[in-house]
Amino acid sequence: MIIDLRSDTVTKPTKDMLDAMMQAKVGDDVFREDPTVNELEERVAKLFGKSDALFFPSGTMANQTALKLHTNPGDQVICDKYAHIYNYESGGVSFNSGVSCKLIDGNRGMFKAEQVLEAINPEAYYYSQTSLVAIENTTNKGGGACWDINEIKKIRTICDEKNLGFHLDGARIWNVLVAKNETTVQYGEIFDTISVCLSKGLGCPIGSVLVGDSEIMKHALRIRKIFGGNMRQVGYLAAAGLYALDNHVERLAEDHKKAKEIGDALRKSSIVKAVEPVETNIVIFELNIDVNENAFVKKLADQDIHIISMGSNKLRMVTHLNYTDTMHDKLLSVLQGRII
Amino acid sequence: MIIDLRSDTVTKPTKDMLDAMMQAKVGDDVFREDPTVNELEERVAKLFGKSDALFFPSGTMANQTALKLHTNPGDQVICDKYAHIYNYESGGVSFNSGVSCKLIDGNRGMFKAEQVLEAINPEAYYYSQTSLVAIENTTNKGGGACWDINEIKKIRTICDEKNLGFHLDGARIWNVLVAKNETTVQYGEIFDTISVCLSKGLGCPIGSVLVGDSEIMKHALRIRKIFGGNMRQVGYLAAAGLYALDNHVERLAEDHKKAKEIGDALRKSSIVKAVEPVETNIVIFELNIDVNENAFVKKLADQDIHIISMGSNKLRMVTHLNYTDTMHDKLLSVLQGRII
Amino acid sequence: MIIDLRSDTVTKPTKDMLDAMMQAKVGDDVFREDPTVNELEERVAKLFGKSDALFFPSGTMANQTALKLHTNPGDQVICDKYAHIYNYESGGVSFNSGVSCKLIDGNRGMFKAEQVLEAINPEAYYYSQTSLVAIENTTNKGGGACWDINEIKKIRTICDEKNLGFHLDGARIWNVLVAKNETTVQYGEIFDTISVCLSKGLGCPIGSVLVGDSEIMKHALRIRKIFGGNMRQVGYLAAAGLYALDNHVERLAEDHKKAKEIGDALRKSSIVKAVEPVETNIVIFELNIDVNENAFVKKLADQDIHIISMGSNKLRMVTHLNYTDTMHDKLLSVLQGRII
Amino acid sequence: MIIDLRSDTVTKPTKDMLDAMMQAKVGDDVFREDPTVNELEERVAKLFGKSDALFFPSGTMANQTALKLHTNPGDQVICDKYAHIYNYESGGVSFNSGVSCKLIDGNRGMFKAEQVLEAINPEAYYYSQTSLVAIENTTNKGGGACWDINEIKKIRTICDEKNLGFHLDGARIWNVLVAKNETTVQYGEIFDTISVCLSKGLGCPIGSVLVGDSEIMKHALRIRKIFGGNMRQVGYLAAAGLYALDNHVERLAEDHKKAKEIGDALRKSSIVKAVEPVETNIVIFELNIDVNENAFVKKLADQDIHIISMGSNKLRMVTHLNYTDTMHDKLLSVLQGRII
Repeated sequence: MIIDLRSDTVTKPTKDMLDAMMQAKVGDDVFREDPTVNELEERVAKLFGKSDALFFPSGTMANQTALKLHTNPGDQVICDKYAHIYNYESGGVSFNSGVSCKLIDGNRGMFKAEQVLEAINPEAYYYSQTSLVAIENTTNKGGGACWDINEIKKIRTICDEKNLGFHLDGARIWNVLVAKNETTVQYGEIFDTISVCLSKGLGCPIGSVLVGDSEIMKHALRIRKIFGGNMRQVGYLAAAGLYALDNHVERLAEDHKKAKEIGDALRKSSIVKAVEPVETNIVIFELNIDVNENAFVKKLADQDIHIISMGSNKLRMVTHLNYTDTMHDKLLSVLQGRII
Repeated sequence: MIIDLRSDTVTKPTKDMLDAMMQAKVGDDVFREDPTVNELEERVAKLFGKSDALFFPSGTMANQTALKLHTNPGDQVICDKYAHIYNYESGGVSFNSGVSCKLIDGNRGMFKAEQVLEAINPEAYYYSQTSLVAIENTTNKGGGACWDINEIKKIRTICDEKNLGFHLDGARIWNVLVAKNETTVQYGEIFDTISVCLSKGLGCPIGSVLVGDSEIMKHALRIRKIFGGNMRQVGYLAAAGLYALDNHVERLAEDHKKAKEIGDALRKSSIVKAVEPVETNIVIFELNIDVNENAFVKKLADQDIHIISMGSNKLRMVTHLNYTDTMHDKLLSVLQGRII
Repeated sequence: MIIDLRSDTVTKPTKDMLDAMMQAKVGDDVFREDPTVNELEERVAKLFGKSDALFFPSGTMANQTALKLHTNPGDQVICDKYAHIYNYESGGVSFNSGVSCKLIDGNRGMFKAEQVLEAINPEAYYYSQTSLVAIENTTNKGGGACWDINEIKKIRTICDEKNLGFHLDGARIWNVLVAKNETTVQYGEIFDTISVCLSKGLGCPIGSVLVGDSEIMKHALRIRKIFGGNMRQVGYLAAAGLYALDNHVERLAEDHKKAKEIGDALRKSSIVKAVEPVETNIVIFELNIDVNENAFVKKLADQDIHIISMGSNKLRMVTHLNYTDTMHDKLLSVLQGRII
Repeated sequence: MIIDLRSDTVTKPTKDMLDAMMQAKVGDDVFREDPTVNELEERVAKLFGKSDALFFPSGTMANQTALKLHTNPGDQVICDKYAHIYNYESGGVSFNSGVSCKLIDGNRGMFKAEQVLEAINPEAYYYSQTSLVAIENTTNKGGGACWDINEIKKIRTICDEKNLGFHLDGARIWNVLVAKNETTVQYGEIFDTISVCLSKGLGCPIGSVLVGDSEIMKHALRIRKIFGGNMRQVGYLAAAGLYALDNHVERLAEDHKKAKEIGDALRKSSIVKAVEPVETNIVIFELNIDVNENAFVKKLADQDIHIISMGSNKLRMVTHLNYTDTMHDKLLSVLQGRII
C-alpha cells in the first residue's frame, strides 16, 4: 500500500468514472461536435451563471488563456507572491502574454483590497499598465486557505472603479465551496473569468474549464487553438468531468476531515515546529530547525508514504480521492511514532 | 449511415482501442510518472531513431513547440504557402515564437531545394534571420501528396550548409510510409524534429508526438508546460497510440485504395473539372465553373455524405478508419449518378 | 567629388538647416517639454488633418509602433511582397507585435483593392485574424512608384467594410505629393495612421513622425517608450524637420527631374536590359544578363559613383538634396561612355 | 531664474558642447558610416575594456536590448524592487523580451550576494528559468546610492557558478566613478554588459551606449534595428558624447558637493522627517507626516524651484550641469527659511 500525499493531482479515476469515460459519446471537438464536451461546457457555465465555458487540457492553459484575454503586452497583473500563475507556470505569463506580475506580499496567499489599491500603477506612460487582478482560491502555496468572500467583493469594487479585470484561479474552488458552504453562483457573480479544475479534488485524469461571459470569452477558442489546446474526441475526458460533478464534490468534506486530523497529529509531534491552519485538503507544516527536511521525507518514503517539500523546511501533504481510510489510519499511526 | 469524409480527424476509436485505453496503467505525467505515456514516448523515439519524444494534446502544439525550439523571436521559417503551420494554426507562429514564415510558391505543398536557397535571407542585420525550414508530408492542402525523399535529402544538405534547422510536420507521415514503402528511420535520419499524429489516419481520439535528439529537445518539456500542454493521467490517451501503432498503420493502404477509387469515379463525372493525383487518403477535386460549390456540398449532405470546401471551387474528401466498405459502395454509386 | 546615389538617406544637413538645429529651443521631451518637438508634432498633425503626431528616431520605429497600435498578437497584416515593413525591418513585425504579413503579389509594390479582398482570412478561429492593411507610397523596392489615389480609396472602402485598420508607410510621401500634385490632407483623410520621414528626401539627419487621430494614437507614446524611442532634448532634430518642411519639399521636383534624366541615359546604354518607369527620385534598372552586377558597381565606385544592388542583376540609384548639378553632369557623362 | 532639480535629464548642452555638435563629421549610421558615432563607440568600448559598443537613442533602449541579448522568452531576471528596468520602462521587459523580473527586497536599491542565491529558481521545468542578474549603479530610486564593489564581485562569482548573465544599468555610473574614485575598467571586468548614459550627469541632449564583448553583443545591432533605434546622421549626438567624456566627468564632483549641502540643509529643516544619505547627485528626503507633499512642491514651484515627488511623502532633488552656484545659493537660502 503506497500512500501518495504529494498532491491531489495523483488520483486515478474510480472504476465508475472510468466506465463513464469509456461510454462517452464523442465527436471532433475541433469542429465543436463532441456532444460530451458540449454538455460539460454548458453545465459548468450554468453552474457559475456565465454564458460561456471552454474545456482545457490543463489548469495552466485555462489560466494562461484568461490572462491573455484580460491583458495586452506590457500590462501588469496584480497577484499574490504565492500565486500559481507566477510561481508554477514556467514564466508563461510573460512568454504567452508579454505581461508581468505585480506581487502583493499577502498572508498565506491572500491579500486585502487596500493592498490592491496600492499595487495599481499610476497612469503615466512610463509605468506598466495595470489591467487585471488574479487571485487563487484555495491557495495552494498558502496551504489550502480559503479567502473571505467579503474581501473578494471589496476587491471587485476596486476592479470596477479602476477598470481592471478580475480572474479566479479556482483550481481548488470546489474545496472552498464545500468547506465554506458557498455556491458557484456566488463566485460567478464576482469574477469576470474563473478557471476550475476537474483533476485534483474531483479526481478526473485530465481537464480544466474556463468560464466567463461572451464578451470576455469571445477570443478564448482562438487563444486555446494558438496554444495547441484544441483536441479531437475529447469527450472521454469531459465524461469524467460530468461524472465528478455528480459524484465527487460533496465527498471533499472527507478529504478535509482527514487533513484536519493529520494537522492535529502533526501538531502533537515533537519534531514539528508549526502547522498552518488546515482549512481544506492541504496540510503545510514546518519541521524544527534541527530536523533535516530531506531525511524526514526519505524516512516516510521508506514506509511508502510520499510527501513533498515546499522549501524552507516546510512540507506539504494533500488528501484526496485515492487516500483511503486504511491509509489514513496507517499515516496517523506513523505520525504518532518516532519518524526521525 | 452517415458518411463523414470531411477529415480523417473525425474517427472514433474502435472497440479494441477503447479496451486498450480503459486498461491503461496511468500516473501523473506532470511528475513524468505515467508508465503508458513513458512507454509510448520511448517507442516513438526509437521508431524514428531519436533519443527523445514528447506526447502532446494536438499536432498544433507539437508543431508550435518545435518552431519555438528552433527559432528566436524575429527569425524567419521557410515553408510552403500551403503549410499547415502558416495557414491553420491561428497565427500561432508569430504569437508563440515571434517569428514569421517565408512562403515558397510550391507545387501541391512541395518545393525544390533550389527554392530553399533562394528563400534564405542575406545576413545583413536589417533582414529577418532565416533559422528553420519546415515541410509537411503528406501535404494536407496539397491533396495528400508525398514528397520525393531525395528532394528532402537535398534540402537537408542545404540546411547543414546554412546552419538551419529542419522540421517535419508529419501529421500524416504514416500515410507516406505505407504509400511509398519507406521507413520511420529514413525520416528520423533526415530531420531534426518530427511531429507525428496519432489521431487522423491512426484513429486515436487525441494526441501527437514530437521526436528529436536531446540537444534540440532539451527545452521541449518546458515549452509544452508554458503552453499548458502538461496533463496528468494521460496514459489513457497514450494507450490508444500504442494500440494504433500495432494495429492501424498497415491498414492505411485500404484508405489509400478507396481514395484512389473515389478519385477515379470523380474523374468520370461530368461536373468535375479536375481531380488532383491521389497518392494517399486525400482527394481534392475542382468542380466545373458552372457548378455551385455550396449547392454541391449541400446535395451530398442531403444524402448523409459530408465533405468540405477548400475554397476556389475545390472540395476535399478524406478516407479513414471509420469509412467502411459499405459506405464506399454507397459513395461510388452516388458519384456515378447525377448529384446536381 | 564623391557621388553617393545609394540612397536619399545619406544626405547631410545644409548649412542653413544646421544653423536652425543649433538655434533650437529644447527641453526634456520625456516630460513632453521640448518646445521645438511640440511645434513639429503639431505642425505635422495639422498638415495631415489629424489630431495627434509623435516624433520618432526612425521610420522603422514609427511603422512598428503603428503596427502595434492596429493589431493584437497572432493577427495578420496585409501588405505587398515588396513592403519595407516585411523586408527591411529585421522581422520586427513578428518580434514586436507578434503578427505576420499576408503578402500580396503586386506590381512594383502596389496592388489592387480586389487583391485585398482575396487576402482577408475567413473568420474561423483557426485562421490568423486579419486586422490591418499597410501600403507604402512611394514604393522603395518598387522603384519610387506612386499609387493611384483612387485605388487607395477603394482599399479604404474595403477596410471600412471589413473593419480593418489602414496604415501608410509614407517614408517618401513627400515625393508623391510633389510628383502628383496631391496634398497631405488628401492622404490624411484616407488613412488611420501615416508615418512620414524627415530624413530621405527632406534631408534631415534623423527623424520620422507618426500621425493619427487620438483614438488610435492614445497608446503611441507608451509603445514608443517601450521600444526606447523616448529621447530628451530632441528639439535639435525636430528643428531640422521644421526647416525641411519650409524649404525642402518643393525642391524634390529637382530630384525627380534628375532621376528621369538618369533613367533616360540608362535606357540608351547598351548594357542595360530595362529601366523601370521613373516617377520620383528612384531609378531601378536591370543589366543585361552577360553584365556582371558586382563588376559594374565596382567600376562606378572606381569613379567615385556609388550605387547599390537590389539583387537579380537589378541596381538602384536615388537622387537627393546633396546630389548637385555638377555631380549630375558627371554621372550622365559617365553613363554615356563605356563603363564595363 | 528657474531652478529645475526634477532630474539631471533636464540639462541643455553648453555652448561649447553645441559647437562640438555642430562641427561633427557625420554619415549614414544605418550603413555604419558615421565617423563620429564610430569614434564614440570605439572610445566607450575601450574605456570599459570591452570589444564592442553601440550607441542608443535612450538608456531604456540600451537596457531593453541588453535584457534581450541575455534572455529567452519565459526567463526571469533578478533585480531590485527599485530597479529602473522594472519600474520605469513601461513593462518593456515583458513586452520586448517576454521575461519577468524576480524582485529582491533590497536596501536603497542594493542587495547582497546571498539574496541573489535565494532568488535563483530551481531548475524544474515548471519554474521560470533564471538567466540574468541586473543591477543599477547609482540607484535612482535608491537616492543615488553607490554599491560596494566587493558585493558586486561576490554577485559576479554567483553568476559564474550559476551560469547567469550580469548586466549593469549604469545610467549614472559616472557619478559612482567620481564619488568612489573607481575606474571604468574595474566595472568592465565584472559585467557582461553595461549601459551608460550620456545625458543625465554628462549633460548631452540624447544618448546612451551599451558595451560588452563580441559574443554577447553579436545581435545587438539587429535588436536595436528591431526596436527602430537605428538612426542616420547621428554623429551630431555622438559628438556631444565625446565632448562630455572629455569635459563633464570630473565636474560631477561639484554636483555631489552641492547635493550634500542640500542634504545638510534639509536635515536642519523642521518639516523634514529624514534625508537619505547623499552619496552622489540625488537627494531623497521625507517630509513630516503633517506636511502636505503636494503643497510643499507647489510652494517651491512658486519660487521657481522645481522638484518631484517619489510617492509616500518622499521628494527628490537632483543636481546637475545646469544647476549653477547662484541657483545653489538661492536654494539653500530658501531651504533655511520657512517654506510651508
